[in-house]
Amino acid sequence: MTASALSFTIAQREAAARAGILTLPHGTVETPMFMPVGTAATVKGLTPEQVRGIGTQILLGNTYHLALRPGDELIAELGGLHRFMGWDGPILTDSGGFQVFSLADARQISDQGVRFKSHIDGSPLELTPERAVAIQQNLGSDIAMVLDECPPGNAEVGIIRNAVQRSIRWAERCQQYHTRRDQALFAIVQGGTNLDLRVECAEPLVAMNFPGYALGGFSVGESPEAMHAALPECAALLPEQKPRYLMGVGRPVDLLAGIAAGIDLFDCVMPTRSGRNALAFTADGTIRLRNACHRRDPAPIESDCPCYCCTHFSRAYLHHLFAADEMLGPTLLSLHNLAHYLRLMVEARAAIRTGGFARFHAARLARYEGRN
Amino acid sequence: MTASALSFTIAQREAAARAGILTLPHGTVETPMFMPVGTAATVKGLTPEQVRGIGTQILLGNTYHLALRPGDELIAELGGLHRFMGWDGPILTDSGGFQVFSLADARQISDQGVRFKSHIDGSPLELTPERAVAIQQNLGSDIAMVLDECPPGNAEVGIIRNAVQRSIRWAERCQQYHTRRDQALFAIVQGGTNLDLRVECAEPLVAMNFPGYALGGFSVGESPEAMHAALPECAALLPEQKPRYLMGVGRPVDLLAGIAAGIDLFDCVMPTRSGRNALAFTADGTIRLRNACHRRDPAPIESDCPCYCCTHFSRAYLHHLFAADEMLGPTLLSLHNLAHYLRLMVEARAAIRTGGFARFHAARLARYEGRN
Repeated sequence: MTASALSFTIAQREAAARAGILTLPHGTVETPMFMPVGTAATVKGLTPEQVRGIGTQILLGNTYHLALRPGDELIAELGGLHRFMGWDGPILTDSGGFQVFSLADARQISDQGVRFKSHIDGSPLELTPERAVAIQQNLGSDIAMVLDECPPGNAEVGIIRNAVQRSIRWAERCQQYHTRRDQALFAIVQGGTNLDLRVECAEPLVAMNFPGYALGGFSVGESPEAMHAALPECAALLPEQKPRYLMGVGRPVDLLAGIAAGIDLFDCVMPTRSGRNALAFTADGTIRLRNACHRRDPAPIESDCPCYCCTHFSRAYLHHLFAADEMLGPTLLSLHNLAHYLRLMVEARAAIRTGGFARFHAARLARYEGRN
Repeated sequence: MTASALSFTIAQREAAARAGILTLPHGTVETPMFMPVGTAATVKGLTPEQVRGIGTQILLGNTYHLALRPGDELIAELGGLHRFMGWDGPILTDSGGFQVFSLADARQISDQGVRFKSHIDGSPLELTPERAVAIQQNLGSDIAMVLDECPPGNAEVGIIRNAVQRSIRWAERCQQYHTRRDQALFAIVQGGTNLDLRVECAEPLVAMNFPGYALGGFSVGESPEAMHAALPECAALLPEQKPRYLMGVGRPVDLLAGIAAGIDLFDCVMPTRSGRNALAFTADGTIRLRNACHRRDPAPIESDCPCYCCTHFSRAYLHHLFAADEMLGPTLLSLHNLAHYLRLMVEARAAIRTGGFARFHAARLARYEGRN
């Protein structure tokens, strides 16, 4: 029984979009919310204090990486993931499935689970639904995810259908095995952009009465247009009163499309990975700070951004840091990009509360795409 | 005339050691003080906010690196080094000489200056006494250093003597050329561990009435014992009422030896470079965080250290960050190591004020060397 770990209240709606409050064992999350990714028990290049300072309310941790290194039992011995990484707010962990299917070598999938070789040292390992839950219980995240099979984005319908059926059986085993009362277990609806398969997957999972539901299998090769088109109907398959999480998505415009479709939670490595690669997000599109045009530019990345990077440093300074391969460049730009994403969530919530989200969405889309 | 940029008051003495207040255009520095090194306009891996938070009162910037990239004229155009790097406290810049003699290729030294090739792109460049001052005036540091010739630590007496004589002529040219009234120009006494050469160098420089003096040419290959033995007499060659700076030194025990000899300012890359390489400074000696013995250790690096790293994270977490090659490892350990150095300065000042420095010095030496 996991539902007691979580309560979710929808405070305002505008069409399908909603603004809510998600209460978890380690704190409260205003939704819609973006979760910075802390793969290996750290948001790359940032201290928890910096992560908190830009308005982060919930982090994502990667079960696959943490189980391999330093190991979930070690983390449990040291008091759990929150204490280990110095983050006392809510944490969601994924199941490790996506990483096994995208990072690990020599996968053998059966109903039992998936055998693979560690991408770190090649050692043979197995991830089963029970093991995925056990790891996440050791980590002690506020929200755990069921293990699902993630077929390639370009797979044939038959392959996706088999993966969907197996994912349903695995979700049931995860739910059976899960015991932590201070952790909510979310189910994952797969099926790609094929609505029939999404329905096939969602119906039995919804009947199992999980405290929250995710959409998996987006942002894995399909076009943004296909994803944006599929999102409203897919989101509508998930229970109206429960939190909805769109996994691994995406660009700011994708988050806006998700919010419009009724999604509450997002995560993506894009703001931090782009930050490490000198790509900055602004409301008027991305800018590449390595470009020579920024060498003498005294302006901040975004003149109205209240983050530490934008209030203290010029584009010229960031250009210099990346040219000199200085660690502070990735740190400051990861900070700004996350701040940009989180500010977008603040503004989206405010817009939903006042019934102005549709207008806000259209205006931001025009700016992001350079049409204003 | 540079003296107006600086005032220096010695508040307490204990034997040769002194505790003082150095007032500079961008703020006040309590001495003895350690200056974190911000080579390329950043203390590697740390924000200015983090650098300030551990008690840093003055930073060092490297003229050679900044002149090559992004260029001193660009920094001047953007408002000077303080504004460029977001650090509003005092900054000392070196002259670039040491880096030309240690990093650059194909050096040709003449009385005019030194020709060399950039270590970044191989382009031919020249550093003269006038150019060294012009660069530092463009940077706008609070304290600039004269250009000196830095012979190898193992050079013969004749070579060191020639370098000393040339450095005296260059110091005079620097002083002649220097015009910024909001910047103090310090002279550098060379001569290695040869006291006769140090006297030969110090006497004419002292007669030129610089507002502060540095000892160069230590920590370049001589034994720590030879340096510690030479420091008291070398420091005594410098004017008693003016700030004294021991360049590029060193380990915590070297700083204590310097303070005992009457040195006021120190800089060294050791705390940050070691921090990036998983070597932690503690009052009981250094520890290598990559070692397997730290894998399960829930203790902080130093249990009584008030820094952000020690109050939030275990050795086990730092071990994990370095094992996973995560940026946060170098960041947190650089932060701790600098905090350790700066706390040593706080404690040394407090000890001098109460007449307890000799006892403090002996006790800390015993702990650092594992003899307590």
